[in-house]
Amino acid sequence: MRGTDGGRDEVVARLRDALGVRVSVDPDDLETTRTDASGHRSGASPLAVVSAESVEDVQATMRIATDTRTPVVTRGAGTGAAGGAIAGAGQIVLSTLRMTSIHEIRPDDLLAVVDPGIFNGELNAVLAEQGLWWAPDPASREISTVGGNIATGAGGLLCAKYGAVREAVLGVDVVVPDGRLLRLGHRSVKGVTGLDLTALMVGSEGTLGVIVRATLKLRRKTLGAERTILGTFPDVRSAAAASAAVTAAGLQPALMELMDSAALAAVHDLLGLVRPAEGTAHLTIQTDGPAAADEAEAIAAVLGARGGETVMSDDPTEGERLLAIRRSAHAAMQALGDTLLEDIAVPRSALPAMFDEIARIEREFGLVIPTVAHAGDGNLHPSFVFEGPEVPDVVWAAASEMFSSALRLGGTLTGEHGVGVLKSRWLADELGDDQWELQRRIKEVFDPLCILNPGKVFAR
Amino acid sequence: MRGTDGGRDEVVARLRDALGVRVSVDPDDLETTRTDASGHRSGASPLAVVSAESVEDVQATMRIATDTRTPVVTRGAGTGAAGGAIAGAGQIVLSTLRMTSIHEIRPDDLLAVVDPGIFNGELNAVLAEQGLWWAPDPASREISTVGGNIATGAGGLLCAKYGAVREAVLGVDVVVPDGRLLRLGHRSVKGVTGLDLTALMVGSEGTLGVIVRATLKLRRKTLGAERTILGTFPDVRSAAAASAAVTAAGLQPALMELMDSAALAAVHDLLGLVRPAEGTAHLTIQTDGPAAADEAEAIAAVLGARGGETVMSDDPTEGERLLAIRRSAHAAMQALGDTLLEDIAVPRSALPAMFDEIARIEREFGLVIPTVAHAGDGNLHPSFVFEGPEVPDVVWAAASEMFSSALRLGGTLTGEHGVGVLKSRWLADELGDDQWELQRRIKEVFDPLCILNPGKVFAR
Repeated sequence: MRGTDGGRDEVVARLRDALGVRVSVDPDDLETTRTDASGHRSGASPLAVVSAESVEDVQATMRIATDTRTPVVTRGAGTGAAGGAIAGAGQIVLSTLRMTSIHEIRPDDLLAVVDPGIFNGELNAVLAEQGLWWAPDPASREISTVGGNIATGAGGLLCAKYGAVREAVLGVDVVVPDGRLLRLGHRSVKGVTGLDLTALMVGSEGTLGVIVRATLKLRRKTLGAERTILGTFPDVRSAAAASAAVTAAGLQPALMELMDSAALAAVHDLLGLVRPAEGTAHLTIQTDGPAAADEAEAIAAVLGARGGETVMSDDPTEGERLLAIRRSAHAAMQALGDTLLEDIAVPRSALPAMFDEIARIEREFGLVIPTVAHAGDGNLHPSFVFEGPEVPDVVWAAASEMFSSALRLGGTLTGEHGVGVLKSRWLADELGDDQWELQRRIKEVFDPLCILNPGKVFAR
Repeated sequence: MRGTDGGRDEVVARLRDALGVRVSVDPDDLETTRTDASGHRSGASPLAVVSAESVEDVQATMRIATDTRTPVVTRGAGTGAAGGAIAGAGQIVLSTLRMTSIHEIRPDDLLAVVDPGIFNGELNAVLAEQGLWWAPDPASREISTVGGNIATGAGGLLCAKYGAVREAVLGVDVVVPDGRLLRLGHRSVKGVTGLDLTALMVGSEGTLGVIVRATLKLRRKTLGAERTILGTFPDVRSAAAASAAVTAAGLQPALMELMDSAALAAVHDLLGLVRPAEGTAHLTIQTDGPAAADEAEAIAAVLGARGGETVMSDDPTEGERLLAIRRSAHAAMQALGDTLLEDIAVPRSALPAMFDEIARIEREFGLVIPTVAHAGDGNLHPSFVFEGPEVPDVVWAAASEMFSSALRLGGTLTGEHGVGVLKSRWLADELGDDQWELQRRIKEVFDPLCILNPGKVFAR
């Protein structure tokens, strides 16, 4: 391998030679890649954006990057919430957004082979025509890519019943830094040949290789009409306790979403509705499948016994209306100001205790922290709202305290957003120093020159 | 780290100093560890068997092994089917069979924390008292350990509907060669903090570390009475085509097992029953859950349309009677002589083509290859029957041809048994040389001295 340590002009020239008009240095294009849905912004613009249209384009880019020791940030739609795909000075942005083909859909084998740049929602629209479904459903699904979903290990609302990305990917094709193409995984339901590198790629946040194709495990669309239940509680702790009681009772809703009082107030303000009484919290629950009606009745009974007032509907339109409040939460948070959207997860039984911790942190740091949660799987999204370009120190201090609480309760720093730049300084708190070092060394096996997404995940 | 390159007496003396009576050099104990359910036998007895009773015992053993550069073979119940836990000259056997505690069962969080040496069946009996269930169900489940199930990525009959081991493990505690304890994974449903090393441990066959504790993801026991369907077909190809048609029709049985004519003949001989007509093949199918009855009717219709004669029952006793033929297959194969039990898997639509390939290989090599298959997930177990202590060359040649066929059809060398010693020479055929090398280097990150299960998986 020849190292030329080329200057930025030489790198761009070599990219242009190899990739022509697929290389952009347009200031607007570069500027876009400095941020993502996290709101974090890198210190300076990257060198260039390569819009790959083929596996060969990715390979050519990686060979030049390796040869010139230039860092590469792989990027899909830029909807990441942890800054994992933001690019800075001296870096090449490798966009997979133009690689959007569906190569294969096999209803008989319940699999699809797709390019990384296709939007999750777009893929699912095509699959739906054949009665099929790729289950991962991050809230961003209409505007986020399958490749990005895999690279971040994106979660969503349906994980407790239908699994997270890790359970929905059979294989990935990956370009490693020196440009070689590896085909990881398999097309069969089972397969234990060697180490499970497909699972290792899920959630690797661009640190190991570039995902250029994926073999997805599909499901049949659920049969049976959905039931939607809205439970209204006088305080967030009783709502959290009720959601934990639903799981503990052996019931399995498709989704179970919790909103606290501050989150509800923000949404009602955004939508021009009258705020509910101070303290009110919501649980919005859907059941599906052949037992949907029976499960919904049983869930309503659990909520009632825990002090919830419930409304139930079997009408899809009314169901969407009940869910609309929850679906507006993200927009409502953004309307409040700049936000740091957090993403801790705890065992489901610890949800009430975690809400106690959030209340304590609000008091101690003098903050209001509106929180929504995927209560069905114990994943909370507390929002820190602030003014100005930088996250204030008090917010980081409160977030740090919140991470400690989540870990103490047997939880994790990040349920579905990933580590990116935002959480790399806490990564070793969860992994321990020994595991952190082991993970970093595994990264080096894939990326010995450390040119893949430097400064993300394993930076500290 | 001090390397003393000690002789075998010194190693045993140091183990005895540290572990006392938990170290055995009894010839019978050593002899037992030379083989497993694969029938393969190592060339010589190992140094000693350490029966660890605690994490500390495992750590002490690994420290001595590292210090003296002595290879370690981790072993559970010895039911592996690929020789992954057989031990040979100069090796320490580290048995986890006495580590059998259940540390925690949490119905509310649907998780259990257990030792590696507990039998799958024993754990499930305890879980059943609380209406819970750990889904992985290898045929060996009454006599195989949870640790072994995880280390091999064991499958079973229910994988298409309920997933394989990878989907049923939240975290593992692992002792690495220098004796450090790493806690991998999490207790929450979601978690994407760093690389997914838990998934990497699943199916790693003792090459990365010693699993000393596992956090398991549980399910509620399925509600609703099971339905069992037996479909009898005039030939194996039509049975295979019918099973593929069931999946293609969007139906999801809990289990769907196929037996060819030679396998049926062997079972009927074993049980003293009259053999069915020459060529006859069986599909045995169970549905469960709230839609079990409807799904069973729909499946019976698909089988009928494909030339199957069907019998259906909603009586559990009768259902077990229909399944008894299938459950006797393994014993029946063993009664025929020595067997090499194979484990290929293909996409479900390729099952008929794979049976064509098996028929071709039978003709070309002059062999009879009785075959059973987990048709619901495309996993076939062809048996090669022979006489004598060594697998004949013609059998290896035929097996090699069969692996090529499976790979050509988009399948894999091993669906659930693993690579062990039996398949290491074909591993690179499936992975490709680049991925093989990458995997070996990841192993070296965990095990730089290559003392964990040398000669298995990555030997060639």
